[in-house]
Amino acid sequence: MKAEIISIGTELLLGHTINSDAALIARELAPLGIDLLNMQVVGDNAGRLETALETALARSDIVFTTGGLGPTEDDLTKETVARISGCPLEEDVESMRALKEYFGTRPMSPNQLKQAFLPAGSAIFPNSRGTAPGCAVSMPDGKAIILLPGPPGELQAMLERSALPWLEKYSGSCLVSFMIRTFGIGEGDAAARLGHLVDGSNPTVATYAQQGEMFVRVSAKGVTRQAAADLAEPVVARVRELIGDYVYGINVPSLESVVVGELARSNATVATAESCTGGLLAKRITDIPGSSAVFGTGLVTYSNSAKASLLSVPEGLLRKYGAVSPQVAALMSKNVMREATATYGVGISGIAGPDGGSAEKPVGLVYVAMSRGHDIWIRTMRPAGRYHGREWTRNMAASHALDMLRRHLRRMPLDAEPWRPDC
Amino acid sequence: MKAEIISIGTELLLGHTINSDAALIARELAPLGIDLLNMQVVGDNAGRLETALETALARSDIVFTTGGLGPTEDDLTKETVARISGCPLEEDVESMRALKEYFGTRPMSPNQLKQAFLPAGSAIFPNSRGTAPGCAVSMPDGKAIILLPGPPGELQAMLERSALPWLEKYSGSCLVSFMIRTFGIGEGDAAARLGHLVDGSNPTVATYAQQGEMFVRVSAKGVTRQAAADLAEPVVARVRELIGDYVYGINVPSLESVVVGELARSNATVATAESCTGGLLAKRITDIPGSSAVFGTGLVTYSNSAKASLLSVPEGLLRKYGAVSPQVAALMSKNVMREATATYGVGISGIAGPDGGSAEKPVGLVYVAMSRGHDIWIRTMRPAGRYHGREWTRNMAASHALDMLRRHLRRMPLDAEPWRPDC
Repeated sequence: MKAEIISIGTELLLGHTINSDAALIARELAPLGIDLLNMQVVGDNAGRLETALETALARSDIVFTTGGLGPTEDDLTKETVARISGCPLEEDVESMRALKEYFGTRPMSPNQLKQAFLPAGSAIFPNSRGTAPGCAVSMPDGKAIILLPGPPGELQAMLERSALPWLEKYSGSCLVSFMIRTFGIGEGDAAARLGHLVDGSNPTVATYAQQGEMFVRVSAKGVTRQAAADLAEPVVARVRELIGDYVYGINVPSLESVVVGELARSNATVATAESCTGGLLAKRITDIPGSSAVFGTGLVTYSNSAKASLLSVPEGLLRKYGAVSPQVAALMSKNVMREATATYGVGISGIAGPDGGSAEKPVGLVYVAMSRGHDIWIRTMRPAGRYHGREWTRNMAASHALDMLRRHLRRMPLDAEPWRPDC
Repeated sequence: MKAEIISIGTELLLGHTINSDAALIARELAPLGIDLLNMQVVGDNAGRLETALETALARSDIVFTTGGLGPTEDDLTKETVARISGCPLEEDVESMRALKEYFGTRPMSPNQLKQAFLPAGSAIFPNSRGTAPGCAVSMPDGKAIILLPGPPGELQAMLERSALPWLEKYSGSCLVSFMIRTFGIGEGDAAARLGHLVDGSNPTVATYAQQGEMFVRVSAKGVTRQAAADLAEPVVARVRELIGDYVYGINVPSLESVVVGELARSNATVATAESCTGGLLAKRITDIPGSSAVFGTGLVTYSNSAKASLLSVPEGLLRKYGAVSPQVAALMSKNVMREATATYGVGISGIAGPDGGSAEKPVGLVYVAMSRGHDIWIRTMRPAGRYHGREWTRNMAASHALDMLRRHLRRMPLDAEPWRPDC
């Protein structure tokens, strides 16, 4: 089965908007065994949209459109599809009710009403995040056009709740997906471990690299949801086994969400002392709603005098080893833990760049220390190969700190050196 | 003159990569008077690429391709364009030299060498960020195909250094652009002020909203760079006049970069005390290389006990007014300034949500305080209309702090209430 996506909107042709919608749809299709071979983008122009639809219907079985469903004069998708499919626009009673409910007592222009008119006989997809419903129009030859809204939040919700279930019925397959999230393993190493698992068969296994992390997505199709899950689960278990404790979670939003959750479960807290990351670690922890239960204090000691006054790092230690040293990172972690009476302390000191490096301490060198009780562990990030930039370096340093916390909380091998203070 | 973009890569059809390249090219075209009417995406497949190129050349004068220039078997763009244009691939001496220099003493596979072969007679664009050069191929009928690399960093550099200058020559127009960056004014208000300036004429004026900021781009074309600049400059001046002191910079990377620059010029420093933003303000300041000259200390006092112990906020004050109060934010800003002996102090306290609000103190309420010497000013962010989410709220609060610093450093009206401490 072949599919195609047509994205509609002049803002895409002006470069004002990046076409993230097409990727949202695309990643759902391969696992269903649907081949996406072409994408097109056209502006809010009925003639060019009609040409695009005709081209797409000539070579594909399913055509997705995004955009052009709204209330303005520019929104022409439904009108054009109605013309091509021979299904005139008709009022959908349920969509009209939902639209009026959305507006409540606020005034509603006649243009708004047109959103409740949809091609006759189509399967209608309610919009849980906005006003314009989508739909699936079946063509006489068995092909289908699926109309989806342009705003990515609306599209994603409609895709999950309505369009994919419709597509599962249409294609006779159900799809179940698992996103296995890892930290500390590269895409090359993971691919070598996964070996023959990564191919185009069912379940599909694909790797994605993102901001220093690596995700493995396992998607299975089956005639029922249960059949798909039964196919996926052993493969998920096998991936988990092959990747080992680099896996930090499955279908979880982020490493920091896992760490905040584990800290809460253990009734533990963490305090942070950051130099080169400059507050990024605290920011990532507090990105998680409810993090106040596990995090109360973060210090950004960017200058040496702040390290001395807030963290009692002796000037002599700073002079002897430099601020970027395992000695200083270790002491930062220990002292912030004590000051804040937290279960864990983290200290990070390094050279984020692009300037400030030396032969002995190159740009990209970062020490990440974690304290608990009398124990301290250190990870050293050394710039291997090329320097990936300031943002990457800072983000990776914060991720290493989170990963050490995760591993200790889950009683896994820490993958860090124990630190024996000599001061 | 009509243009079209063909993005090439199976990763785009699998949804592994979002097509940001197309938007990067698109936003350069309208100001040059070139109409971009279609975009296509195809996989790494010579047959479908050939069809896409033929369709594009039939309806457009200039066709851009992105991707498929690399060393692997999958990279088929040059071969396909050579076939269509009748310009066979030939070794380009300068590209071969650059390629060998890039690899140095590292081993180089024969496949790598193919990157230095380009369609005969094409204008060659060196790749300053990678190994695969791009080029412009002129067709016998006067049309042109411009081949660009897929990785966005490589594409952007090649666009700026080679492809746009080539396009200016081809179209007989030079393009000069100014991005006017603002904070504190909405897109609707800006559009009303700019009025007739925002239309499709030369210079073009367009507004972009992004993470609570609003940008106005002015682009002018002329027969020379100077002629374009002469056209643009009075419009830039007019936009600046109409938007007033909401403008924080022109062609600058960010609000924080402006603030770090202004602090450095004034030999001033800032210290931060953050509650609901949890380190985000410190993170944004330290995103800027060289920020250590103006920033030494940041405190993340997420808990009340951290506010009491690190910032000497009296427990009585916390009990009487609550942590989310102008009283507490003001004292945070004053005490962190004193503790760190900084020129400015910032204190931020609020309810980022999604939970934790009340009728009196709703989710989205944030107090942002700035101290200098004996003076304190406060801005209050009240949730107007709908709550925009935790990330937006935190980011806006940090932006308000940066905006207050910018305005004070530039001796502009502060747009904040003076705070008279009653404690």
